[in-house]
Amino acid sequence: MKRIIIASTSTLHSGSYLEYLLPELEKHFEGIDTLTFIPYARPSGISHDDYTAKVRETFSKINIHVEGIHEYENPREAINQAKALFTGGGNTFLLVKQLYQNELITTIQQKVLSGTPYLGTSAGSNICGLTMETTNDMPIVYPPSFKTFGFVPFNLNPHYLDPIPNSTHMGETRETRIAEFHAFNTQPVVGLREGSWLEVLGNTITLKGSLSARLFEQGKTPIEIPTNSDLSHLK
Amino acid sequence: MKRIIIASTSTLHSGSYLEYLLPELEKHFEGIDTLTFIPYARPSGISHDDYTAKVRETFSKINIHVEGIHEYENPREAINQAKALFTGGGNTFLLVKQLYQNELITTIQQKVLSGTPYLGTSAGSNICGLTMETTNDMPIVYPPSFKTFGFVPFNLNPHYLDPIPNSTHMGETRETRIAEFHAFNTQPVVGLREGSWLEVLGNTITLKGSLSARLFEQGKTPIEIPTNSDLSHLK
Repeated sequence: MKRIIIASTSTLHSGSYLEYLLPELEKHFEGIDTLTFIPYARPSGISHDDYTAKVRETFSKINIHVEGIHEYENPREAINQAKALFTGGGNTFLLVKQLYQNELITTIQQKVLSGTPYLGTSAGSNICGLTMETTNDMPIVYPPSFKTFGFVPFNLNPHYLDPIPNSTHMGETRETRIAEFHAFNTQPVVGLREGSWLEVLGNTITLKGSLSARLFEQGKTPIEIPTNSDLSHLK
Repeated sequence: MKRIIIASTSTLHSGSYLEYLLPELEKHFEGIDTLTFIPYARPSGISHDDYTAKVRETFSKINIHVEGIHEYENPREAINQAKALFTGGGNTFLLVKQLYQNELITTIQQKVLSGTPYLGTSAGSNICGLTMETTNDMPIVYPPSFKTFGFVPFNLNPHYLDPIPNSTHMGETRETRIAEFHAFNTQPVVGLREGSWLEVLGNTITLKGSLSARLFEQGKTPIEIPTNSDLSHLK
């Protein structure tokens, strides 16, 4: 049975790293003493070691030890022995390139589908969708494919941002970008605002956090979905 | 001799399509009666015909007739017979995918290097750099490569946006994204604010418009470059 948290962001403006999610993570990782962290997205280009150290410090607050996947000679072995997985945010292109290069896509898919608890934030959430084609990130490296895990049968847009009223900037709004996505792709897109997350338990997908999310479906006007909605019917 | 305008945007918030650039375009396309338009980037997913009609209406004001590349059975033939080229904005991933699919990269490169005047706006400007890896666009389709024309020996970031003071949004600023690019790539990036453009005449590259641009070089603090600066030394 799948046990997945797909969070828009690791950090709220008002808080420290993962602070708002920690009570939820205590429940999500109940009975787990060791977490395997995937630091490949490297926010601001920081090293795998530095990123893992930051995550280790945070999870020590709920008595979970953190290992970095990069500390293993064979990353597939790291996944196979993992008791729980966390993929952190940063750059989605870099993350996906590294996952493919290390031949980890199928390995992680099988692990998570067999019930290993997974947490993703930001880039680590994007990869839970069918493709990474609704990421906000800059394409700083070229991955061999845009296909991702497909733990949910739609795409995610983390850090979803409403159009800024009276903006004079002529770059596309997030809503326009997702409309362009739907000119060429059929799957729904869930725009997750910062502070929101999806909880996936088996085949049940629930919107959590205090905010509503924005749902984009091809050929339809986008709508707001209230928190605690069941999204299991989406596809 | 290269004759290229690389513009941050087609449209300013205060004006109509290409309005602010028209006096410059009259000079740039002096003696030209027909322009070949490349509508592949399809902003908001509009059709090639609709996009070309919009461009045709604008260029009629300076007595230039506009043909769409998609009106030709063989797009390479359209390029080869073109007197001047304009690639419009929209989605850079879509544009680059289409350019590769139609085997146009080398054809357009040769045409522009041999002196055919070129105009790019937004996505059509991104492709003038070495790679499209500093675009702001959403990766809605998968192009076979991120390599682009390399008419200038650096990358572009059109619609360059300064960090928003006191923003509570936790998504990366443009400056952070470009810093992440430089963790993996060596070429400079020129952040062109809306209303700015680069004029390329042979080997001379000049910043135009009323605003400064922001220059990002690997391992250096970003700096402002005043308008009318010569950027020919960058590489």
